[in-house]
Amino acid sequence: MNYSICFYTLGILLKVEAGLMLLPLMVCFLYGEDPMPFGTVIAMLLVAGTLLTLRRPKNEAMYAKEGFWIVGASWILLSLFGALPFTISGQIPRFVDAFFETVSGFTTTGASILTDVEALSQGILFWRSFTHWVGGMGVLVFVLAVLPKSDAKTMYIMKAEVPGPTCGKLVARVRHTALILYGIYLALTVILTALLMAGGMPAFDSLVHAFGTAGTGGFGIKGASIGYYDSAYFDTVIGIFMLLFGVNFNLYYFLLLGDFVSVFRSEELRWYLGIVTGAVVLITVNILPQYGTVLRSLRYAFFQVASIITTTGYATADFGQWPTLSQTILVCIMFVGAMAGSTGGGLKVSRTAVLIKSSYRELCSMRSPRSVRALKFDGKPMEEQTIKGIHAFFAAFMALFLLSILILSLDKQDHVSVFTAVTACFNNIGPGLGACGPAGNYACFSDLSKIVLSFDMLAGRLEIFPMLMLFTPATYRKW
Amino acid sequence: MNYSICFYTLGILLKVEAGLMLLPLMVCFLYGEDPMPFGTVIAMLLVAGTLLTLRRPKNEAMYAKEGFWIVGASWILLSLFGALPFTISGQIPRFVDAFFETVSGFTTTGASILTDVEALSQGILFWRSFTHWVGGMGVLVFVLAVLPKSDAKTMYIMKAEVPGPTCGKLVARVRHTALILYGIYLALTVILTALLMAGGMPAFDSLVHAFGTAGTGGFGIKGASIGYYDSAYFDTVIGIFMLLFGVNFNLYYFLLLGDFVSVFRSEELRWYLGIVTGAVVLITVNILPQYGTVLRSLRYAFFQVASIITTTGYATADFGQWPTLSQTILVCIMFVGAMAGSTGGGLKVSRTAVLIKSSYRELCSMRSPRSVRALKFDGKPMEEQTIKGIHAFFAAFMALFLLSILILSLDKQDHVSVFTAVTACFNNIGPGLGACGPAGNYACFSDLSKIVLSFDMLAGRLEIFPMLMLFTPATYRKW
Repeated sequence: MNYSICFYTLGILLKVEAGLMLLPLMVCFLYGEDPMPFGTVIAMLLVAGTLLTLRRPKNEAMYAKEGFWIVGASWILLSLFGALPFTISGQIPRFVDAFFETVSGFTTTGASILTDVEALSQGILFWRSFTHWVGGMGVLVFVLAVLPKSDAKTMYIMKAEVPGPTCGKLVARVRHTALILYGIYLALTVILTALLMAGGMPAFDSLVHAFGTAGTGGFGIKGASIGYYDSAYFDTVIGIFMLLFGVNFNLYYFLLLGDFVSVFRSEELRWYLGIVTGAVVLITVNILPQYGTVLRSLRYAFFQVASIITTTGYATADFGQWPTLSQTILVCIMFVGAMAGSTGGGLKVSRTAVLIKSSYRELCSMRSPRSVRALKFDGKPMEEQTIKGIHAFFAAFMALFLLSILILSLDKQDHVSVFTAVTACFNNIGPGLGACGPAGNYACFSDLSKIVLSFDMLAGRLEIFPMLMLFTPATYRKW
Repeated sequence: MNYSICFYTLGILLKVEAGLMLLPLMVCFLYGEDPMPFGTVIAMLLVAGTLLTLRRPKNEAMYAKEGFWIVGASWILLSLFGALPFTISGQIPRFVDAFFETVSGFTTTGASILTDVEALSQGILFWRSFTHWVGGMGVLVFVLAVLPKSDAKTMYIMKAEVPGPTCGKLVARVRHTALILYGIYLALTVILTALLMAGGMPAFDSLVHAFGTAGTGGFGIKGASIGYYDSAYFDTVIGIFMLLFGVNFNLYYFLLLGDFVSVFRSEELRWYLGIVTGAVVLITVNILPQYGTVLRSLRYAFFQVASIITTTGYATADFGQWPTLSQTILVCIMFVGAMAGSTGGGLKVSRTAVLIKSSYRELCSMRSPRSVRALKFDGKPMEEQTIKGIHAFFAAFMALFLLSILILSLDKQDHVSVFTAVTACFNNIGPGLGACGPAGNYACFSDLSKIVLSFDMLAGRLEIFPMLMLFTPATYRKW
């Protein structure tokens, strides 16, 4: 391992976090709140960042191993420092709670340990939602976008941070790719904020909800989430934008280039829209007796499906009260997740599709063992290496999933709460069912469970392997 | 598809089932019960069997496709006819219930829709448990063992019916392999029956419990399962024999040949024993406060772990009352299942091990992408084709699993009952948690759910693909 480049990059990252915290600091001044918590942490970040970047590393070589390590370590470090304002301000006094909340923010999970979110100050609320926006597209992608230095090697960082089985550079230079992605991301966020304000939502509320939607995070500022506004307009706008942020950002780039053919050819997009449509129809029919009119059922079903499949986690209705079938459908699409290359979490639509297709291929090859057929995706044959990677990912996913459930079972919560807490955190959704349902929160879990869930959120957001690598002794062994 | 050989084989099978039903017929005479139900069905089987075998097929060619089709169709047909005595005797009046019970028997699941098992007649009880014994080693393997004709082609049948990712012939001829397997199976069953009788269990009880243990089925003849006898001796004997029947039968053959090295080298055996030990220790500690003494906790924990990992499903304690952690461990080992080539169900220990190992390998290859390492099992490198097959199996398993849960969710049962009902049926275990827990049964589910669960039991026992193939239109298309 080339430790000098690793620590140097971490140093840059801490300085960037100091820069990001200037925004909540400004919010504090704006609302006349105590700026001390953010001021203190900014100072700490600058000192630590400067110390780590004092010496430029002689050897700038960076390989896959370093890339994964940097991404894993960065996200933990970011969250550790990001949790400090909550604790220093005394609004989340226990550090393990603040850490959980911050990890939940950066990983765009949206799971909260807060029992009364409306009691927080504006500065803290802003920072809490802003972590979603930063984490959504990836903070290291941001670093790549703003830093001039960037060569082929930094591709490994991008690969590890952008979700999905494959990550293509849009243009030749990594830095330009990162800039394009952040440009689209920023533009969509601005449009959403404007639309919400046009509907009469206060400016502050519009901005934090745009952050939560863009990052597919789900932190709100009201106890009843988006249900607080009870407006068909907001439900529709946020519902549509959640789905938009669940789309692979490469497709927007193709749209900008006028390349509509590539967009229509995207097999993942068709699966994504197909699953959304199917789930919305089934749930609408299933909850119809509960809400009376088709329009109302459709509105709640559409919003909830969009919220869950994109792993955002906003709620307009307490789906904990819906029939078992609807709840089961929601739990299923929790696992599917959004498209690769979007800000959403979960297994990703493309992985799910490949898993289904490769099982079907196996079935065919058992029927006639001598026939060899390539698995096609987007009309092109897939590399066996990629398919194998997806299967191994799935297996690692399930293994970590089960291990987490075992540890959480120590908590004496009921099965549904434990199962859906892990599901919701691992897939970066937020609310589960039972104790951690849309009407509940994660305060009831033990510290050990909160740490395990924090790990799961990070593993889910970074697609498992960077987190596993960080805690594998072999990573630190000399070869 | 070569339909003539398919139907001809089905005909032989029906005649074999008629032969198997002679045993419960004899039990009826022995206990002075009405022999009519079995007599009628035997006559029907003989007529149908004779009609199907009237004409010897000219073309005896049999490939993978035919092998899978025969196995899938055989098991459905066997269960349809096997259910008739229950309905004709009026002891399970509704055919869908009788079918569920029979599928549960042949697939060695042990899930029951009976609310009062002790009300059944001896003949019916015998047949119910005897289906476990027949289904355990595989009825087609039995056919292969008793029929003189057997060539290389029938290997496909054996491959489809013997559980596990790989199936090796022990000796050159399929028929001899089948004979050896059934010989070992019979011998172990006889020893177990003798041991139970030696402990003071009535002869009839000993025999049916030996059937249930040997097939890793789990049907008992008492409402409280093995807990009825409340004897440390029976718990220990049955516990140990359940574990023995969960071992790959090839290892017993090696033992018989004096080849101890092969047994000790078996990596799957070490995983199996390791998982059992780990689970027993954890559960013993976890349930200690509930039972007071270590010995009592250990006794219940050992029995339940042996019962669940081998997918037998006998119970000595109501584990629905155990702490969440213990229940979660039991649900986890439900998925792991027994060793390949045993009579148990589940994913199989070897598949689980390969899934874990290949994920770990993927992790290593992400750290240093250029290193290529072969995945070793039993000290030998595994073929990539086998690993791919295991992954595809796992994906198909999860897909069918989720689909079943969705359909069962229509039933308005709670999540835990639905989830564990599918888990327990798919993995051929029997009892789940909640409504279908050790103290409950499957009577509360709707007919649709019972049919889905029957399909799941068959898919679990036959390792998914034969059942999927049976219902894939492409199977019946001309190439």
